[in-house]
Amino acid sequence: MADGWSAPESFARLDHDRAARRGYPEAVYCAGKTPDQVRAIAAELRERARTALHPTGATLFTRAEPEHARAVLAELPDARHDPDSRLLVWPPEPPPPSGGQVVVLAAGTSDLPVAREAELTARYLGRPCELVVDVGVAGLHRVLGVLDLLRSARVVVVAAGMDGALPSVVAGLISAPVVAVPTSVGYGAAFGGLAPLLTMLNACAPGVAVVNIDNGYGAGHLAAQIAAPL
Amino acid sequence: MADGWSAPESFARLDHDRAARRGYPEAVYCAGKTPDQVRAIAAELRERARTALHPTGATLFTRAEPEHARAVLAELPDARHDPDSRLLVWPPEPPPPSGGQVVVLAAGTSDLPVAREAELTARYLGRPCELVVDVGVAGLHRVLGVLDLLRSARVVVVAAGMDGALPSVVAGLISAPVVAVPTSVGYGAAFGGLAPLLTMLNACAPGVAVVNIDNGYGAGHLAAQIAAPL
Amino acid sequence: MADGWSAPESFARLDHDRAARRGYPEAVYCAGKTPDQVRAIAAELRERARTALHPTGATLFTRAEPEHARAVLAELPDARHDPDSRLLVWPPEPPPPSGGQVVVLAAGTSDLPVAREAELTARYLGRPCELVVDVGVAGLHRVLGVLDLLRSARVVVVAAGMDGALPSVVAGLISAPVVAVPTSVGYGAAFGGLAPLLTMLNACAPGVAVVNIDNGYGAGHLAAQIAAPL
Amino acid sequence: MADGWSAPESFARLDHDRAARRGYPEAVYCAGKTPDQVRAIAAELRERARTALHPTGATLFTRAEPEHARAVLAELPDARHDPDSRLLVWPPEPPPPSGGQVVVLAAGTSDLPVAREAELTARYLGRPCELVVDVGVAGLHRVLGVLDLLRSARVVVVAAGMDGALPSVVAGLISAPVVAVPTSVGYGAAFGGLAPLLTMLNACAPGVAVVNIDNGYGAGHLAAQIAAPL
Amino acid sequence: MADGWSAPESFARLDHDRAARRGYPEAVYCAGKTPDQVRAIAAELRERARTALHPTGATLFTRAEPEHARAVLAELPDARHDPDSRLLVWPPEPPPPSGGQVVVLAAGTSDLPVAREAELTARYLGRPCELVVDVGVAGLHRVLGVLDLLRSARVVVVAAGMDGALPSVVAGLISAPVVAVPTSVGYGAAFGGLAPLLTMLNACAPGVAVVNIDNGYGAGHLAAQIAAPL
Amino acid sequence: MADGWSAPESFARLDHDRAARRGYPEAVYCAGKTPDQVRAIAAELRERARTALHPTGATLFTRAEPEHARAVLAELPDARHDPDSRLLVWPPEPPPPSGGQVVVLAAGTSDLPVAREAELTARYLGRPCELVVDVGVAGLHRVLGVLDLLRSARVVVVAAGMDGALPSVVAGLISAPVVAVPTSVGYGAAFGGLAPLLTMLNACAPGVAVVNIDNGYGAGHLAAQIAAPL
Amino acid sequence: MADGWSAPESFARLDHDRAARRGYPEAVYCAGKTPDQVRAIAAELRERARTALHPTGATLFTRAEPEHARAVLAELPDARHDPDSRLLVWPPEPPPPSGGQVVVLAAGTSDLPVAREAELTARYLGRPCELVVDVGVAGLHRVLGVLDLLRSARVVVVAAGMDGALPSVVAGLISAPVVAVPTSVGYGAAFGGLAPLLTMLNACAPGVAVVNIDNGYGAGHLAAQIAAPL
Amino acid sequence: MADGWSAPESFARLDHDRAARRGYPEAVYCAGKTPDQVRAIAAELRERARTALHPTGATLFTRAEPEHARAVLAELPDARHDPDSRLLVWPPEPPPPSGGQVVVLAAGTSDLPVAREAELTARYLGRPCELVVDVGVAGLHRVLGVLDLLRSARVVVVAAGMDGALPSVVAGLISAPVVAVPTSVGYGAAFGGLAPLLTMLNACAPGVAVVNIDNGYGAGHLAAQIAAPL
Repeated sequence: MADGWSAPESFARLDHDRAARRGYPEAVYCAGKTPDQVRAIAAELRERARTALHPTGATLFTRAEPEHARAVLAELPDARHDPDSRLLVWPPEPPPPSGGQVVVLAAGTSDLPVAREAELTARYLGRPCELVVDVGVAGLHRVLGVLDLLRSARVVVVAAGMDGALPSVVAGLISAPVVAVPTSVGYGAAFGGLAPLLTMLNACAPGVAVVNIDNGYGAGHLAAQIAAPL
Repeated sequence: MADGWSAPESFARLDHDRAARRGYPEAVYCAGKTPDQVRAIAAELRERARTALHPTGATLFTRAEPEHARAVLAELPDARHDPDSRLLVWPPEPPPPSGGQVVVLAAGTSDLPVAREAELTARYLGRPCELVVDVGVAGLHRVLGVLDLLRSARVVVVAAGMDGALPSVVAGLISAPVVAVPTSVGYGAAFGGLAPLLTMLNACAPGVAVVNIDNGYGAGHLAAQIAAPL
Repeated sequence: MADGWSAPESFARLDHDRAARRGYPEAVYCAGKTPDQVRAIAAELRERARTALHPTGATLFTRAEPEHARAVLAELPDARHDPDSRLLVWPPEPPPPSGGQVVVLAAGTSDLPVAREAELTARYLGRPCELVVDVGVAGLHRVLGVLDLLRSARVVVVAAGMDGALPSVVAGLISAPVVAVPTSVGYGAAFGGLAPLLTMLNACAPGVAVVNIDNGYGAGHLAAQIAAPL
Repeated sequence: MADGWSAPESFARLDHDRAARRGYPEAVYCAGKTPDQVRAIAAELRERARTALHPTGATLFTRAEPEHARAVLAELPDARHDPDSRLLVWPPEPPPPSGGQVVVLAAGTSDLPVAREAELTARYLGRPCELVVDVGVAGLHRVLGVLDLLRSARVVVVAAGMDGALPSVVAGLISAPVVAVPTSVGYGAAFGGLAPLLTMLNACAPGVAVVNIDNGYGAGHLAAQIAAPL
Repeated sequence: MADGWSAPESFARLDHDRAARRGYPEAVYCAGKTPDQVRAIAAELRERARTALHPTGATLFTRAEPEHARAVLAELPDARHDPDSRLLVWPPEPPPPSGGQVVVLAAGTSDLPVAREAELTARYLGRPCELVVDVGVAGLHRVLGVLDLLRSARVVVVAAGMDGALPSVVAGLISAPVVAVPTSVGYGAAFGGLAPLLTMLNACAPGVAVVNIDNGYGAGHLAAQIAAPL
Repeated sequence: MADGWSAPESFARLDHDRAARRGYPEAVYCAGKTPDQVRAIAAELRERARTALHPTGATLFTRAEPEHARAVLAELPDARHDPDSRLLVWPPEPPPPSGGQVVVLAAGTSDLPVAREAELTARYLGRPCELVVDVGVAGLHRVLGVLDLLRSARVVVVAAGMDGALPSVVAGLISAPVVAVPTSVGYGAAFGGLAPLLTMLNACAPGVAVVNIDNGYGAGHLAAQIAAPL
Repeated sequence: MADGWSAPESFARLDHDRAARRGYPEAVYCAGKTPDQVRAIAAELRERARTALHPTGATLFTRAEPEHARAVLAELPDARHDPDSRLLVWPPEPPPPSGGQVVVLAAGTSDLPVAREAELTARYLGRPCELVVDVGVAGLHRVLGVLDLLRSARVVVVAAGMDGALPSVVAGLISAPVVAVPTSVGYGAAFGGLAPLLTMLNACAPGVAVVNIDNGYGAGHLAAQIAAPL
Repeated sequence: MADGWSAPESFARLDHDRAARRGYPEAVYCAGKTPDQVRAIAAELRERARTALHPTGATLFTRAEPEHARAVLAELPDARHDPDSRLLVWPPEPPPPSGGQVVVLAAGTSDLPVAREAELTARYLGRPCELVVDVGVAGLHRVLGVLDLLRSARVVVVAAGMDGALPSVVAGLISAPVVAVPTSVGYGAAFGGLAPLLTMLNACAPGVAVVNIDNGYGAGHLAAQIAAPL
């Protein structure tokens, strides 16, 4: 950077020992990164894996838009890509499931991308995981119809937008903790997810753990930690 | 007001023909009025009734703090007073019930003052009305336990604070409209009732009519209009 | 979902018995759904109707963008489509009107799409409905000019943006309830509809039922419930 | 301040030439000042008047709580005090009225203190001023009943809380500008005056000048400037 | 509207007598209207002018995007169009100036479109008007450099974004009222104009009349009313 | 309720089978309840325990102000009371600890009441629990000084106000989930806990579960669920 | 804490080596601490000083209400106390001034407590410091009257509420950085200091460093760091 | 402007003597300016430099989108352009470094554009400056790894989005002031940078100077002032 204009030598420093320190691999947050930056990270991952003594866990690329996905796949052609949830994972194989059961609910079809991101994250962090869609409180019989599944879970993730009322209802029915992820589904006074966020923070049933709006990755990660094998 | 300092001759002008124009009597909103002002209004009501050709409906004094109540009772000793909901009514007898059934739900005990204000308002505006307390979504069996009552109503009023999730659940179970009144019950991210207000505005079940936070009077009035005899 | 990447078998579960349970048909909220998802729902509706013993009511597709509309029309070519309000309806015939009169007011021309969504919804849920446009409070004579129509209604829907003052004025003139739907019409301190939303929640005349910003569907649904035949 | 603890020599510097520079006398904002500070200012005013070559205009003490009023009256026993609007004025005589007519409307009785502050301010800044109370939009006939008075004004000040809809209605009826002052009257989603503030900023009729919530002084001052003699 | 699908017969009702009632012509707010709707209004204006006994004042089309402008010009080819401020006016000649002087300040170059909208509005409503650009408080000498002009005005309009501090400074220097129009110029914690809006509402100098964010039209209209000939 | 004025027969319905359904006893939220209501609930608890076949778990009274505490102690003299955290518990003995270790951190001394509420809740729900005070990020060496303890926990609860930065730092150091409870400690732009709430929702380290502001009870309950024995 | 009820052994851990690590002594934030806690901290300070090899710098107790002040003075009778700014300092002697000049401006008399807190903090952290009061932008001549003093400073602290416009004006006149501290002085749309906070963050002149609302301590500390001797 | 439609003669007035008055050159804020306006300013700069007696400092064009950059380069072909930070500078050579060391930290790669804008600004205002990337609090070892560099700085700039926790941590480790610039990196409850803005304003370590969201220019300018040679 001698003349004030050359690019910084390093624009990202991967936290390679995070797996060792925290027990979970790092994720690469693609939003705000250029495709070139993401591609360089992917190349670095490939290189590191080539020289590693033993395999490391999967790395997740989150919030990957199509141009990010192309950049990753150019370096890691066998990376798996889920366009709806904007996730890429490499290496493509999830670890064998261990720990407790994770159940993910999507209140409506429009909440599916976020729920899917949570499901895939939990799965790639090593948990058995099941996803159920379209279980809104406006049709309580749907919630009650999956009660046995819910009660079998070590932790339940609930993705809901609009009124965000589903986590309160679910938490009142089971003894396991609920990870509630508000989504930006809705309009007007949903204020981009603020409404379900507040609903979930004020859940009248205890046992609701809230994460950021649309943060399916964070919800899946938290669920994987809660359901981790002892 | 010749010298710029004498009090205005009239500080309030009662809308005496509102009963004729709208079919419902006026209410006196006591907040922000001095006890003296409220007392003068009570005296004017008494005088008007003394000279009226035929009886007018009940007048409600809303948000009456103890000092307001004393002022009203000094002029209208037979006015009835409910300290919890801060309502006074005069004349004290409700009209004979007509129109459809109104059911009022309080999600929790702390929502009772608001629910009670709604119930008494609907009753004094002439509707048959029933109040059920402590029916939160954290215990769904309580909601389902009053399902028959809910389905018998022409309109259901739901008062709820915190997550405000109850109206969504109730609206999904019945065909009648739901009047949702958010309460300021809660703390922190409830933000004085903002959280349940947003929840109710974003109810994923259609058929939810929202009124202002803690506005039990408005909820009862709206319910009385909806359930009015044809 | 054996390998963590196949799509969920079912992304939406239609609430087919909602007509039976609530008395009103379900609507399909298109925002956040892919055209393929909407098309599959349309196909399922067609199939269900083909095998039903007796006709079901109309299904509404709300917030349908052009690509959603094309997807629905590919499966249900006789569906009717109103691009302004983004509504599609199938089957295309509204039921014969029953119940009380619904009157819909649009405060300004820019509020027309929302008002139109309310009008069509009420009509397809079976109510007689009339729409009047450009009745803002800045020209009171326009409001007073439709006073007879307003007083003939069982319920009045008012769509207004900017200052959102019209519902207060209308509610003060009639005995029927007013369903107020704030619109995102305006700019600056209208904050996307927040300003008229707050105005309506604070209406100084009782009898105003508020729904979410731009929620013409919800307003029409609520009006249809209020004006339902006994 | 040699040792870091003595009080600053001067805690307030009166803008004595503001009358000359701006044509209007300075006001003393009492909130946040100690009674001792207010008393010292009052003493300074008395001293200045004693030594002045010709009389200066009235000085207004705004937002004076009882302890401030006592402090002022201790120095200026003939100061006039209106406890409702928390105003004190000295010297006590308003100037002879000049310029155009100012009309002040209070939407409800609870808005009276703010409206009164506006009225007295305009009067002490030299304008003829009339105050009308309880003219809410929920009873349009009251507004229409003062239409002649409104149309005779050079400027109309409107104080309103809750929905804050009155300025829109008034501005649509007259050609003079309207000074709109939102009040903190209301509860819940009135958010301390935010709701009427937004309503007024979004008035669908042009010609509405908005000032801060509860700022009766500012409204009266602005009105006096607008109605100033040329 | 017999079948529920035909367009409403009338989508806009021009307030043709507003000039008579309020003394100022109506404006057509184009945002939210389709080009076809705007074109139909333009045609109606042309028709009305053709049959009028005496000329009416100019009609302003505000917030006209290019497609709106094309629609107006197709019907009224001699309408004048200022793309920066998104204004069209027809007939194109402003009335001869009368009343007091209006001065418009733009704090920065980026505030120019809003300031220009105010200037043109005041001019077409009949006032003499002068526009000065780039007078921010960060360079006080610029403000002081136009002090004579400011003190010659009957009213000063100030358009400012970011900190919105200019109206406070100007109001402290002159005796005429200041119309403050916050702009959405800025980023981050300017929150789309909220920051300068709040600054202006809290101006420590009295005499500041605030209008909505980016509301150059409203500012110019209000200024024209304040500076109207008696 | 025959005459519209008698109190409802039941103002609260305890969810006695919640322990069976959810595995955790119900809590009594005292805010918004009168002391009489709380006392009646305490009496009902005593009665139920007297007639129960086998002991039930502890019942927690949360947000108990002194008058609530007196009411409870009048019925249940052996209830234990912690005035700082406003908790009462009865029966007074916590269950023998089972499940994983819970560690509670208070970022500052002012966060202690909330942290204490979390600690006592977790302890009375049966978990081993340790509380560490004054571990703010402004002194990182304090955090690093308890790293071994943090890494021994099955779940860590962090109570922090002001910047709310501690959960991010802790979550980056351990593999267990972090329950973050923002507190209302702070002033100004802390906005009653909104600032740390947002910080925690945006934690750049995954694994942070957020609960409502000042919700020590909810944090402790969630932690107890996460650390529950399998 | 063996039985779950005894108090934690330590409720606060003073950061005794902060002076060494950061070069500035720790402050004790009294809000949210009980007087007993504050007294214990004061006692610990006294004990530490008694046994220290060489004197440590002054310790500041901030936001000390009268009961906190009594508690400190009971242990440290020679501590100096400034009730307006709620500061206590011990030992009472400020260090000899070093580094650059700090100038503190209070826009109005009501901003004085915050400005005073900044001044005393900077002084006790070792800087020469001067305080000037009542320098609002509504009277520009007052600002220009202290221009020489402002230009002599290494850093200027500006405390202002309401419109918060003063820092923009000052920063535009000098080359030194400005530390802007918004105060909660004002009402209505000042929103407890939010308005001046936003103004300052959007200052159109660069060189403005913003701290939290009413954070005089933080402003003084930052100024002391900026003006530190090299 | 004789006919009300011609463009204003001057749309921008450069503050050419700002360098003399404040010691730092003016910057041209391109957002909201047309490319033509920016080009005219660039031409004026070139002309002024041609006729100046001695060289002036560099002028920065901030927030320059590609079309702005093209416009500047058309007039000043040797201007230097950094597309990531949207900065252009002319003349292209930075001044020789003087004053104290500035260190800029970017918490994550996505914060790099803002950090880069700060770095280049400080460098072109004459300070020695170093930029370090990807130093988030989720990996504390990275922060501790640059501790020597941080402690060598006269001022540290920290750019961080999401939780914005890094400035608190850094300020707790060093004695120099920290300039904290929140970025809009993040999503959901980051609310466009509001979350890190609030975090930084509430930093529990004193010595944090906050600037507007994404205001890299302002951060660099402030840092250059703080580190200015005496």
